[in-house]
Amino acid sequence: MTAYERITIGDSIAFGAHRFTAEEIKRFAVAYDPQPFHTDEAAAAQSHFGALCASGWHTSAVMMRLFVKYFASEIERTKARGEPAPQLGPSPGFDDLKWLKPVYAGDEIAFSGTIVAKRESRSRPGWGIVSIETTGINQKGEPVFAYTGHVFAAIAAKT
Amino acid sequence: MTAYERITIGDSIAFGAHRFTAEEIKRFAVAYDPQPFHTDEAAAAQSHFGALCASGWHTSAVMMRLFVKYFASEIERTKARGEPAPQLGPSPGFDDLKWLKPVYAGDEIAFSGTIVAKRESRSRPGWGIVSIETTGINQKGEPVFAYTGHVFAAIAAKT
Repeated sequence: MTAYERITIGDSIAFGAHRFTAEEIKRFAVAYDPQPFHTDEAAAAQSHFGALCASGWHTSAVMMRLFVKYFASEIERTKARGEPAPQLGPSPGFDDLKWLKPVYAGDEIAFSGTIVAKRESRSRPGWGIVSIETTGINQKGEPVFAYTGHVFAAIAAKT
Repeated sequence: MTAYERITIGDSIAFGAHRFTAEEIKRFAVAYDPQPFHTDEAAAAQSHFGALCASGWHTSAVMMRLFVKYFASEIERTKARGEPAPQLGPSPGFDDLKWLKPVYAGDEIAFSGTIVAKRESRSRPGWGIVSIETTGINQKGEPVFAYTGHVFAAIAAKT
């Protein structure tokens, strides 16, 4: 069975969790999204958010880091079992990203994904496209982030 | 006329351009998307991309930075004309983000947006939702990035 064959629709994966500190929220925002409610506690308190919160792009980037880390550990686990390791290619993009609630300083967000589709690529022989419905949930159990990503996966990945 | 009334469907806005250096591509990727084709020239040369290229999340974050910078300068211009300044709220998310081609080290990407929809919010009285079809084009004229973002805008923004 190849790594691609083992990808099963309905399977869920916990990518891991991350606690967003005020310091990193501000650092990301100064570089990429310098709006006052992401860069300054006092200005954020006066804003519609009511407190310092992360740029939605920061939340997305942290989700990606946890996904990459999960995937690297999954490669190690499959190698340890002597199975062919999965191999990912580029992502063509995604659908309907939602920032459902603010991610405030101190919030811990747990990200997970469910495989919702896989199909063989017509344009790229030897590759499939896997779709993963991904969500981020805060420490109160509230969904704060959702998107469905697509990524190329090698159909006959070599170990 | 309020700032919201002046938002016209079909209007296009140039957000500005950015040249992606190898150094910043690697810095972003180490922090948020540590895949070898984003962090290491030699590994990238061996990959399906063929050369070091930016994380799609990095491209997205740079787009956001240019949009925020454009919007801050637009506020200054409207104030200088004595008109009510536009006021943005949070973004609920977006549709169909596409990474159409890799953004390689040295590429210069120009981002622009076209207003494609605006409507009054039912859930948030006093606010509208403006939809902006945004694209990134490289120095060869090739589209590399596209998405349609939605953002809350105050209907009767005060100066």
